[in-house]
Amino acid sequence: MEEVEKQLNRLIKEVGYKKAEELFAKLNGGKRLRAKLILKIAGENEKSALLAAIVEMIHAASLLHDDVIDDAMLRRGQASVNATEGSKTAVMLGDILYSKAFGELVGFGEEIAKTIASSVTALSVGEMMDVEMAKSFNANEKKYLKMLYLKTATLIEAAAASAALLAGKEKHKYAVYGKNLGLSFQIIDDILDIIADEKTLGKPAMNDYTEGKVTLPYIYLFDSLDDEGKERLISLHAKKLNDEDVKWIRSQMQKHHSIEKAYALAKRLSEEAKEAVKEESELAAILDKMIQRSH
Amino acid sequence: MEEVEKQLNRLIKEVGYKKAEELFAKLNGGKRLRAKLILKIAGENEKSALLAAIVEMIHAASLLHDDVIDDAMLRRGQASVNATEGSKTAVMLGDILYSKAFGELVGFGEEIAKTIASSVTALSVGEMMDVEMAKSFNANEKKYLKMLYLKTATLIEAAAASAALLAGKEKHKYAVYGKNLGLSFQIIDDILDIIADEKTLGKPAMNDYTEGKVTLPYIYLFDSLDDEGKERLISLHAKKLNDEDVKWIRSQMQKHHSIEKAYALAKRLSEEAKEAVKEESELAAILDKMIQRSH
Repeated sequence: MEEVEKQLNRLIKEVGYKKAEELFAKLNGGKRLRAKLILKIAGENEKSALLAAIVEMIHAASLLHDDVIDDAMLRRGQASVNATEGSKTAVMLGDILYSKAFGELVGFGEEIAKTIASSVTALSVGEMMDVEMAKSFNANEKKYLKMLYLKTATLIEAAAASAALLAGKEKHKYAVYGKNLGLSFQIIDDILDIIADEKTLGKPAMNDYTEGKVTLPYIYLFDSLDDEGKERLISLHAKKLNDEDVKWIRSQMQKHHSIEKAYALAKRLSEEAKEAVKEESELAAILDKMIQRSH
Repeated sequence: MEEVEKQLNRLIKEVGYKKAEELFAKLNGGKRLRAKLILKIAGENEKSALLAAIVEMIHAASLLHDDVIDDAMLRRGQASVNATEGSKTAVMLGDILYSKAFGELVGFGEEIAKTIASSVTALSVGEMMDVEMAKSFNANEKKYLKMLYLKTATLIEAAAASAALLAGKEKHKYAVYGKNLGLSFQIIDDILDIIADEKTLGKPAMNDYTEGKVTLPYIYLFDSLDDEGKERLISLHAKKLNDEDVKWIRSQMQKHHSIEKAYALAKRLSEEAKEAVKEESELAAILDKMIQRSH
């Protein structure tokens, strides 16, 4: 992973603009999940470290752009670039990272470059869908899962698939692994937003629903409620919830096993992911660790 | 050019998201200068039309992102996506266009793809510099011209250079042509902001200066003024100008030939551009037409 950070520093230096370099240095790199996956799948060498750096650069760009909405003033516990420098600078820094990453990708040949570029198109489509869907209550599980796949799983899928291509491994298997890892990761995140307390989350519980995001447990709950319950749930959509509302939603979800249903799907997806790459125990371990966050 | 529009439609359809397709259709394509240049340099065929469509897609993305500041509610005389759909959607539509364009570029080989991708990095850096520089009065001509080159000339330069590569012509000559065309075009634009009336511009005269943009005529004027004049000019920076201020600036610029100096530079750059591709009379004609806008 040291080599990945070294490559990241080199790439941003090559851009040749001090301000961009400084802002990039201040970004919190997070868990570097995508980079770790690439190194695990393709082995640790200069080429795989560069691919990992490129994908992390793309991920950072997508987060910068994701933050360009009025209320995203925090990212990974610190003030976002959007908040401190203004939205224009956040957008442009993202564009610098995207274009620099794409320029470097070309050296990896057509298939890898196309795989990664397409995933960026997909994730941007997913972001647009997310904005659209938050405008009204959506009870359609399939539609929600499609948005979730595009927005949060396609880049992980592409990272795993291109690492496999780089190492001459079977692309499809690793794509399935990456996709299902991304999806189950996000479903667990959605569950935590409901069951964890404010202190653990660093934001109010059920913040997703307040932001208009009807995640899986809400969709499952809606399916189980009678007409009166359905009406009440819809009436709370995209509103600030008081303690009584939170209590009511939690108790109804408990009664109707909505969380368990979402958890079961995450578990099933993660089993499929493990099955796809069953010869690689380290990849399975990443999944197990991730699923256990919810318990 | 019909083939370019056809390719554009195909590319945006391939993205597979109705909303993005609709928003893209509503964008005003403008003069399609970059596409026309590419077809003129590389000849009209399927490959050059695709390259032209890709570059226009990138240009559209850059405009969408350029508009993501609080006051860019109009673009080419119509409400910007930023204004009608919100900044998040404008950013994401731009990302969709960028990534789709980059994905298609890969088919043109490493040199063309890198040339175009690097120009996007450069133009994003230029945009960031522009935002930074608007915060205070800048009297440095060299610094201003560097920003101008990055922000407004690099994509035209890259378009011309990659069209030359596609046609097996000499890359460097066409790069010089594109760069100088872009620079002189923008300098003329900056002049028009000062000398044209509100009706012609569709915005208040000297809007650039109100937005904090110290364009060439202001830099030249500053150099010519005495201390008292310098102080007055600086005091008006980034402010709404009243009629008296406008009159004073215009009369001082007339007295000190500030507009002529800027115009002379545009003229010189455009002569250099013509000289670089002197065997191509159509490319020279584009420049002449553009320079004449200011008279």
